[in-house]
Amino acid sequence: MTNNQQILLSSRPTDSLGPEHFTLAERPLPALENGQFLVENLYLSLDAGFRQWMNEGASDNYLTAMPLDQAVQSIVLGRVVESRNPAFTPGMTVMGRTAWEQYSIADGTDLMTVIETAADIPLHEYLCALGPSGMTAYFGLIDIGQVKAGDNVLVSAAAGGVGSVVGQIARIKGCRTVGITSSDKKCAWLREELRYDAAINHRAAEGLLAQIQREFPTGIDIFFDNVGGEILDTAMQHLALKARIVLCGAISQYDKTGQHSGAHHLWELITKRARAEGFMFSDYVERYPAAMEDISGWIRQGKLKSPAVIVDGIENTAQAFCDMLTGHNMGKCLVRLSQ
Amino acid sequence: MTNNQQILLSSRPTDSLGPEHFTLAERPLPALENGQFLVENLYLSLDAGFRQWMNEGASDNYLTAMPLDQAVQSIVLGRVVESRNPAFTPGMTVMGRTAWEQYSIADGTDLMTVIETAADIPLHEYLCALGPSGMTAYFGLIDIGQVKAGDNVLVSAAAGGVGSVVGQIARIKGCRTVGITSSDKKCAWLREELRYDAAINHRAAEGLLAQIQREFPTGIDIFFDNVGGEILDTAMQHLALKARIVLCGAISQYDKTGQHSGAHHLWELITKRARAEGFMFSDYVERYPAAMEDISGWIRQGKLKSPAVIVDGIENTAQAFCDMLTGHNMGKCLVRLSQ
Repeated sequence: MTNNQQILLSSRPTDSLGPEHFTLAERPLPALENGQFLVENLYLSLDAGFRQWMNEGASDNYLTAMPLDQAVQSIVLGRVVESRNPAFTPGMTVMGRTAWEQYSIADGTDLMTVIETAADIPLHEYLCALGPSGMTAYFGLIDIGQVKAGDNVLVSAAAGGVGSVVGQIARIKGCRTVGITSSDKKCAWLREELRYDAAINHRAAEGLLAQIQREFPTGIDIFFDNVGGEILDTAMQHLALKARIVLCGAISQYDKTGQHSGAHHLWELITKRARAEGFMFSDYVERYPAAMEDISGWIRQGKLKSPAVIVDGIENTAQAFCDMLTGHNMGKCLVRLSQ
Repeated sequence: MTNNQQILLSSRPTDSLGPEHFTLAERPLPALENGQFLVENLYLSLDAGFRQWMNEGASDNYLTAMPLDQAVQSIVLGRVVESRNPAFTPGMTVMGRTAWEQYSIADGTDLMTVIETAADIPLHEYLCALGPSGMTAYFGLIDIGQVKAGDNVLVSAAAGGVGSVVGQIARIKGCRTVGITSSDKKCAWLREELRYDAAINHRAAEGLLAQIQREFPTGIDIFFDNVGGEILDTAMQHLALKARIVLCGAISQYDKTGQHSGAHHLWELITKRARAEGFMFSDYVERYPAAMEDISGWIRQGKLKSPAVIVDGIENTAQAFCDMLTGHNMGKCLVRLSQ
């Protein structure tokens, strides 16, 4: 029997999330039951969306609040090391939703899928542009955004795990791409590293709306929004006719235990015959292979970079997650548990 | 030369609209220029959407604020009485966007279309179920709402000109239909006269959300919203997966000269993979004939009623418009200028 290091949610945040809400614990691994398999986790994916389920009685009901004193729910990438399930055999690389822990016991549910890795693609990519972030960017932009060449595409949290892929796919599709982020340093990185056509620091004195109007004289065709709140409300004021707002996340709102801040410009969706639509990457699981083929092609052709911030050691997970939420990082954030 | 009675917007409302904001004037009709034609207006259509353009510097920019001391902009139905435009000849029945006035000088723009009237359909119907209200209901429900049999359809301002048609088309399409209105009397009318499956009085003590939850145990598939504001925000809290919100109007917000009240539940569009989309009936002008064929068929088969409140006399237009905005009426509101 092996011990399993886990990061537990030990108290609920009522405002900003901090490392004090988490505890590192070591618990014995129970034996596998029939149908189960044991995954040794190699990487934990840090995704802002999971923040909201740490709140008491999350306002939505599509996933209930994470239980206290249990390992924090997370997307992980790992390898099957023991199995009593014929579909998942030892040696397979798998991705799924388990938790911040060294080992996960899975049963094939919880989005668990076998990953066909390629020799020339680093393993962690399967949690980045070839993983949840990439699938979110791809299906959000293509299916929900209905992207087409010439579109004016605005992306919020553009330096984040999803945003950093969205802007690049939009560029590949022939769009003008503008990213919103929170510092001049990250603006420069968006332009130089990710080849956004322009970048907007929403904290700049000029103000967000004025910058958006300047960058898009004819209005926004697609707004890929990871942030919600005031940034979403502002972008709604400068839509082009038939604009599509891809509602992907609302990172600005997750610290709120009450209701989210209000959007005052929904009316603009009428005047612009525009649309706002939400989605979840996991609804597209049957189409992952096609998306992964497109994205890995772009990576191999040098058209798409997949920047990652990799933190080593499970004990650093909580701090890394909190840093990501406050916009410290550029690119997708991961924790590496094993080399 | 004939004199032309007009209702002018003589001052801008800063809160509720009242008859005091309008003046009846009589002005000489100028001679027609080449390309113009003279329409004797038979009916004025009272449409809540026009309220917003009476405000100073309307927040949207798809139509600028109505000018002061000019006749109030409106959809009208009339007959061509004189013409210097070969496409519009005397005797033709036309519908278009001109103004609250006895006679309009038109030039074929401003949505002006020739109406092929049927002997067995009352003329005013071409401003009701066969006019802008009907086209709005039809294309909103079918194109934006993507209505299908079995959908749970909620309609706000259900007793209004648009809402009274929406619920009936949804029923014809095989949906469960629930209308929101503002009094028990109108609730009874929705159920008995328009055959809504159920009606909700949003002012009832039980509260709107509780009533919606009770009427739709599995959530709302289509919310056809004419009201905006708090009712929209409330309905967003009880969407079914893949719900469609048809953003048609925001009558609750038109009295505001500042920004609209906030929607705090956009996040629900993500969790429910749902969509909110705006539209304007006038974008579908090429498809009016097909829609009118469907709707007139339903009228002739007794499946669809098109209730109208008809006020006589241009001098009563302003009061009738204000009454409509405060929900006094059941059905489409019209002013008849000539028999």
